[in-house]
Amino acid sequence: MTSHTEQSAVTVLGLGPMGRALAGAFLDAGVRTTVWNRTPGKDRELVERGAIAAPSPEAAVAAGGLTVICVVNYDAADAIVRRDAVTDALKGRTVVNLTADTPDRARDLAAWAAEHGIGYLDGAIMTPTTTIGTPAAVFLHSGPEELYQEHRPVLDALGGTHTHLGTDIGRAAAYDIALLDIFWTAMAGYAHALAVARAEGVTARELAPFAKGIGAILPPIFEEMAEDVDSGTFSGEGNPITSAVSSMAHIVHTSEAHGIDAGVMRAAEGLARRAIGLGHETDGFMRVTEILNPR
Amino acid sequence: MTSHTEQSAVTVLGLGPMGRALAGAFLDAGVRTTVWNRTPGKDRELVERGAIAAPSPEAAVAAGGLTVICVVNYDAADAIVRRDAVTDALKGRTVVNLTADTPDRARDLAAWAAEHGIGYLDGAIMTPTTTIGTPAAVFLHSGPEELYQEHRPVLDALGGTHTHLGTDIGRAAAYDIALLDIFWTAMAGYAHALAVARAEGVTARELAPFAKGIGAILPPIFEEMAEDVDSGTFSGEGNPITSAVSSMAHIVHTSEAHGIDAGVMRAAEGLARRAIGLGHETDGFMRVTEILNPR
Ligand SMILES: NC(=O)c1ccc[n+]([C@@H]2O[C@H](COP(=O)([O-])OP(=O)(O)OC[C@H]3O[C@@H](n4cnc5c(N)ncnc54)[C@H](OP(=O)(O)O)[C@@H]3O)[C@@H](O)[C@H]2O)c1
Ligand SMILES: NC(=O)c1ccc[n+]([C@@H]2O[C@H](COP(=O)([O-])OP(=O)(O)OC[C@H]3O[C@@H](n4cnc5c(N)ncnc54)[C@H](OP(=O)(O)O)[C@@H]3O)[C@@H](O)[C@H]2O)c1
Repeated sequence: MTSHTEQSAVTVLGLGPMGRALAGAFLDAGVRTTVWNRTPGKDRELVERGAIAAPSPEAAVAAGGLTVICVVNYDAADAIVRRDAVTDALKGRTVVNLTADTPDRARDLAAWAAEHGIGYLDGAIMTPTTTIGTPAAVFLHSGPEELYQEHRPVLDALGGTHTHLGTDIGRAAAYDIALLDIFWTAMAGYAHALAVARAEGVTARELAPFAKGIGAILPPIFEEMAEDVDSGTFSGEGNPITSAVSSMAHIVHTSEAHGIDAGVMRAAEGLARRAIGLGHETDGFMRVTEILNPR
Repeated sequence: MTSHTEQSAVTVLGLGPMGRALAGAFLDAGVRTTVWNRTPGKDRELVERGAIAAPSPEAAVAAGGLTVICVVNYDAADAIVRRDAVTDALKGRTVVNLTADTPDRARDLAAWAAEHGIGYLDGAIMTPTTTIGTPAAVFLHSGPEELYQEHRPVLDALGGTHTHLGTDIGRAAAYDIALLDIFWTAMAGYAHALAVARAEGVTARELAPFAKGIGAILPPIFEEMAEDVDSGTFSGEGNPITSAVSSMAHIVHTSEAHGIDAGVMRAAEGLARRAIGLGHETDGFMRVTEILNPR
């Protein structure tokens, strides 16, 4: 069990851009912060701000209350914690793993933690480094409710909103995967749109105000479509999937006529055409969720 | 030349959901509106509201001042207007083609119009049918400035904002293609995210509030990235393309582990990996615009 004093101490393992932002926010909130990174030197600025530099991950863990891990992926997290010295140091303590990876990897690391008497919470950070310590930060958590409540005060030092999604340890990663899917697919669409626009003599700055307009209509559409997808109703009234496919074909054609790869849009168009082929031509585009994942 | 009286009269060819919305807005604004659609019966509600039903496209054109076309694509527009009777009726009049298609098709139809002494403006509608006649509607136009200014008063009856993008007739379609590219790629990402979430036991309604959050961060990112893309600077500080690729790989893995097609994300990941392969591993993801479309 961690004492109250130890609760306001934290260890951050991993000092990439995000790990440094987390450690910086803990320091700003007056939490005693011990840091470690595989490659030395990344702790310099943090140490100047009051962080304690540990010579090894086991020493870092032993110095703090809660251990926060934020590295590139779970292979990296495993490489750090699944060594006897670190595992022994973590025994009876709690890890909050804010590294992004798949739900399976979260479940796997949680099983290892349980085996070794280590408390384990999994989390995901949904906003950029610049939001950490500000109200704009968004953190998702999953794992044992009690453990989450116990460590919530120190996590709150990171600012932003923290949501506990449930006890299924894979849940934060599942949300993370789904949300990053939206984000990176949209960014791929934007990058492609800018390439096509440029080929047509339209600069990114010229397109941007209208691109922002498209971005702004997405959140209400996401909300409206969520109802339809859960209930399995996909009315195409006002905007049938055939109309979407027609637009997609125009995009592919214009792109390829400029020698620009249209693989992303070709894949999206293929899904829509499959939905039409299966007889859903009067439905809306979101019918493709059922094509991807039949009930 | 059209007389002043004829200028406040309009003909709408094509009464799909969008054509009906346009005709309805003209009627609401008190513009004399003549309508025609290939398949009969779609004009019923409009006629009840005061529209004049024409028996043929040539009769419809002859009855109105400005002819607005809004059909599925330019094959359909061509099928309507590139017949002698309609071409003759259009001589000396102006067409505003609000049908979506590629810039090439717009240029092609404009050349045909010029050959036949028909004024031609090309346009694109960037918002759904429900916005027509409201301030939320967004219309893009291109073509001769004078012609645009002459017909602007009647176009204003459609509500919303109208932007004249320039005299290059293909410009509205180029913006349209680029903006629809962003929209439909993002929607494909959302549909896929919901399918993956469902496989992980997360409903669309549970994910939606966070999906809205992702949607909300896109407009400022679009704006910021536009500067970088125009100037060819792609700093990956804070979020390198290697980190994006790691997320993309997690998405593909989780998706395919549930038997869910990940073709869209695989294509996006492929672009990012090509950028890394070309030595841009410390850049941000938007470097892929250069991969798609080398300067
Ligand atoms: N940056 C953002 O805006 C952002 C936003 C939301 C979530 N995240 C997530 O936060 C996590 C960290 O991201 P980041 O931006 O800080 O950068 P990153 O490039 O994803 O991760 C860099 C960190 O991982 C460590 N690392 C890599 N391989 C390792 C290994 N085999 N053993 C030990 N450590 C290893 C690095 O150590 P070395 O210095 O020794 O290489 C460094 O500390 C990621 O999961 C990312 O998805 C980031
Ligand atoms: N709906 C929206 O929210 C929206 C938003 C922005 C832009 N737009 C654009 O607006 C245009 C019209 O869209 P829409 O929503 O009204 O529905 P649509 O399904 O794209 O188009 C239907 C219209 O096209 C006509 N048509 C199809 N093939 C034809 C042919 N060979 N000859 C003559 N007419 C033909 C149909 O006539 P029949 O009734 O005889 O089949 C009907 O009038 C499209 O370019 C679309 O991209 C639509």
